[in-house]
Amino acid sequence: MKSVIAEIITIGDEILYGQIVDTNSAWMGTELTKIGIKVKQITSISDSAAHIIEALDNAKTRADIILMTGGLGPTKDDLTKVVLTSYFNTTLELHEPSLADVEEIFKKRGREITELNRQQAFLPAACTPVRNVLGTAPGMWFEKEGKVYISMPGVPFEMKRMMTDTILPKLKAFFKTPEIIHKVVQTVGIPESILADKLEKWELNLPEHIKLAYLPHLGGVRLRLTGVGIDAKQLEQEIQAEVDKLQQIIPNYIFAFGELSLEAAIGQLLKERGLTIATAESCTGGYLAHKLTSISGSSAYYHGSVIAYHNDVKIRELGVKPETLQQHGAVSEATVKEMAANVRQKFNTDIGVATSGIAGPDGGTPEKPVGTIWIAYADKYKTEAKLLQFNKDRLLNIEYTAMAVLNLVRQSLTATVEE
Amino acid sequence: MKSVIAEIITIGDEILYGQIVDTNSAWMGTELTKIGIKVKQITSISDSAAHIIEALDNAKTRADIILMTGGLGPTKDDLTKVVLTSYFNTTLELHEPSLADVEEIFKKRGREITELNRQQAFLPAACTPVRNVLGTAPGMWFEKEGKVYISMPGVPFEMKRMMTDTILPKLKAFFKTPEIIHKVVQTVGIPESILADKLEKWELNLPEHIKLAYLPHLGGVRLRLTGVGIDAKQLEQEIQAEVDKLQQIIPNYIFAFGELSLEAAIGQLLKERGLTIATAESCTGGYLAHKLTSISGSSAYYHGSVIAYHNDVKIRELGVKPETLQQHGAVSEATVKEMAANVRQKFNTDIGVATSGIAGPDGGTPEKPVGTIWIAYADKYKTEAKLLQFNKDRLLNIEYTAMAVLNLVRQSLTATVEE
Repeated sequence: MKSVIAEIITIGDEILYGQIVDTNSAWMGTELTKIGIKVKQITSISDSAAHIIEALDNAKTRADIILMTGGLGPTKDDLTKVVLTSYFNTTLELHEPSLADVEEIFKKRGREITELNRQQAFLPAACTPVRNVLGTAPGMWFEKEGKVYISMPGVPFEMKRMMTDTILPKLKAFFKTPEIIHKVVQTVGIPESILADKLEKWELNLPEHIKLAYLPHLGGVRLRLTGVGIDAKQLEQEIQAEVDKLQQIIPNYIFAFGELSLEAAIGQLLKERGLTIATAESCTGGYLAHKLTSISGSSAYYHGSVIAYHNDVKIRELGVKPETLQQHGAVSEATVKEMAANVRQKFNTDIGVATSGIAGPDGGTPEKPVGTIWIAYADKYKTEAKLLQFNKDRLLNIEYTAMAVLNLVRQSLTATVEE
Repeated sequence: MKSVIAEIITIGDEILYGQIVDTNSAWMGTELTKIGIKVKQITSISDSAAHIIEALDNAKTRADIILMTGGLGPTKDDLTKVVLTSYFNTTLELHEPSLADVEEIFKKRGREITELNRQQAFLPAACTPVRNVLGTAPGMWFEKEGKVYISMPGVPFEMKRMMTDTILPKLKAFFKTPEIIHKVVQTVGIPESILADKLEKWELNLPEHIKLAYLPHLGGVRLRLTGVGIDAKQLEQEIQAEVDKLQQIIPNYIFAFGELSLEAAIGQLLKERGLTIATAESCTGGYLAHKLTSISGSSAYYHGSVIAYHNDVKIRELGVKPETLQQHGAVSEATVKEMAANVRQKFNTDIGVATSGIAGPDGGTPEKPVGTIWIAYADKYKTEAKLLQFNKDRLLNIEYTAMAVLNLVRQSLTATVEE
């Protein structure tokens, strides 16, 4: 099967001067890859007609699809639109449905439509307009000599909505791309290299048309299985069979199938079981609570937290015994266990978790270097603690610790043991 | 003065397939802009010799400097190095100092050096090697027909260190770029459009060689003044004079000169004045505490927080009166004021702040729609509250609210009033 090749051209000085990071291209790269279209080059160019034309001329020698973002909108003088109108030797015409969309947007905002915005509804006659329900600049789809040229605004949420609603389905149909099915299996608590060891034999035995990708990120590794075929239903079954095998090999490290964060997965588990949770944080300083409360609906299971940065707060608000702090210090198994057990009592929840450690970059000692962190979990059956050892980066230490606590909660909820 | 033009080429399928976001280019764009070098194009290409050569051939028709990242390192078969060796018609030779660096890195890691890593010290004879103190792949600097070609590893911290230590100073010297001085003035609590109105007259009167850039980001607008000239000392004085004028025009919105986050600026103010702070959070769910504790050394002024997601916690742990909750609801001026005043008492701090609102996307009512948020500030002189109204995005609402509270603290500490 010959690959369909795409190139992305982003237009705008703000990317070249580093004022914004180009996250659009990575998103497009991911989505195009998912439907079997291969991105060959991404080119970021300046707001200049000559540069746009040069980039188009170059890209069409290599690609079947050219996706452009940016250079649309009244403050940019709709440069891309003007260039494309001339590039495809056509003229601008009023596109009534686009005008209606622009008028609707201004009506919603309660503002008068300006002449500049009205002009955004004038589009090259040779293009198929792509509806933009979230902004005033419509997209444009051109076809010439079997190649497709697409122009979209650079505003990420407008571009993403257009791609998802219109452009990706249309590209799939136009190029008759094969069926491609992805399944994501999310793991936590196991480093990529150890995971790769455990999965080596299984991966070697995968059918030719199913591929595995390791996508590590902060605190976990996403495994993505991608199958290519003709019959969607059969492909679906084949991939599911591999996912089932995977679950046999690493049952204790999988926390979700599909795109779901660890905090969302835990939220679902807590909701299903009607359990509640409270947190007591020292070194994570609120970040653990933030992760849990970033999930909409978390108030159903999350009661609250005491952030005890000062030792007095640990004693007064969390009931940690002064003797414990004196004998073992704030960063100790004994302290963190008292914090978890007491916050659970105090907030009247089923589960209590706690963190105490040296986030750094300063504050370490030879016995307890920076990155020494204790975490604890308490429920009505048990109170257990775990020692973590990270490095010197304060924010990373905070983030890794929060992930480790969430994983401790997950392990208890799913009643698995670490291998 | 003719501009010196640079292009960036990033090499690696992982960018094209969207597996990583190219943050390197934005960083390089910012740094090159700062020394007066203009980035004309950024090109991301695949791990392929033919594609690298094509990109180089194209770039050299437009640019004086071509910066490449990626395609180095043993797992990539050092593709870029092999291609450049042939492109510049030279041969690979052992570079002893680079070998010593690689050996040193392996010694530190306590591991045996492999043959593959030893080969990384073989470099094209025609290049000036660029030292990499953080990794095993040295950089390469080529000069040909007045143009400079630079190859660096794609690992962000290695690339940044090489650029800062060696490449940026060397480019400045090679192209004799003019003196360029930047000063950043950071504002908060004023939207970009209103700021632009207030600054219009001043901006119009800026000297020809001093330019202003608006760099808006979450919760604030950074103003960057860039001056170009021959005499660094004179230029410094001229820009400072403009910064002084700026401070006269918008004294109440400036929180820092230079690169400093709002939470770091507040930390400095609190430390200077020997003041302490505690937080009581409902809708921000720990994010406000996280911002404050993300600053190293924050334990000197930050005592802790009660996160009161559940109303019982507001009553029991924060002493909010049940009548207040009943009469006014959790999202109200009365509740948030009690939270701020009581957390201050409870944690024995100089300042208490509080948040309570509907972060969304669900949970709104006609009287209190999603995005309705009350914040409060309390010290020994006063307790004051402020109503915020945002939209439906939960995470943005949380982030904007935290910024608004930090700004409330800043305003009280600097004893300014809102215009």
